[in-house]
Amino acid sequence: MKIDHVGIAVRSLEAAVKAYEALGLKVSSTDTVASEAVKVAFLPIGETRLELLEPIAPESSIAKSIEKRGEGVHHIALRVENIEESMRLAKERGLQLVNETPRIGAHGRKIAFIHPKSTSGVLLELVQD
Amino acid sequence: MKIDHVGIAVRSLEAAVKAYEALGLKVSSTDTVASEAVKVAFLPIGETRLELLEPIAPESSIAKSIEKRGEGVHHIALRVENIEESMRLAKERGLQLVNETPRIGAHGRKIAFIHPKSTSGVLLELVQD
Repeated sequence: MKIDHVGIAVRSLEAAVKAYEALGLKVSSTDTVASEAVKVAFLPIGETRLELLEPIAPESSIAKSIEKRGEGVHHIALRVENIEESMRLAKERGLQLVNETPRIGAHGRKIAFIHPKSTSGVLLELVQD
Repeated sequence: MKIDHVGIAVRSLEAAVKAYEALGLKVSSTDTVASEAVKVAFLPIGETRLELLEPIAPESSIAKSIEKRGEGVHHIALRVENIEESMRLAKERGLQLVNETPRIGAHGRKIAFIHPKSTSGVLLELVQD
């Protein structure tokens, strides 16, 4: 298992990119995900990457997260080999799944979320390539 | 550069360890850091690790963080080659440093923090081996 990415909710992608580039990171790609109402910039770091997320509409879950908790880390995505098996084990061991079955995320990958109530306040995303 | 660890503030180390172990991670070591008033458990994941932090006294900065913002990701630590150089560049490019010079953290490593105001709400720790 490894960390696929760390999602960070930001008010301004431009300001956030500038800050992280000041630390020596570089943007590898940017994207707009209409279904989530976000603009995204990816910054590789080692085997993982930071995913900076700026909402582009007030109904975006990222906009709501910023309104409620401010900017900052929004989720941690764990890359797993078999998402159905990971979800089954997590559920069996008492974790609360947000999704009962995987959904399809960016690049056609299977994803599912685990509720932060179960994981000491961290929204976890499971990702399978 | 890589992510050295992701620090997560938790109310109960026991409950948090149980949740993350349900996802297939394992605790590699635990420690009590009296100077920070925390109990810590490390869970390796790929080239990085999760650092679960439970406060053991109300004056702990982790206790204050939980009181203010709840449980969840507390900081992201970036491993850099030359911490003084990274700090110099960060400052030159307008980031706000919490420490003007590196201090010595666990295992004798040089560490320094960057204020979350500068980095879209994320408390960043720089670490040099």
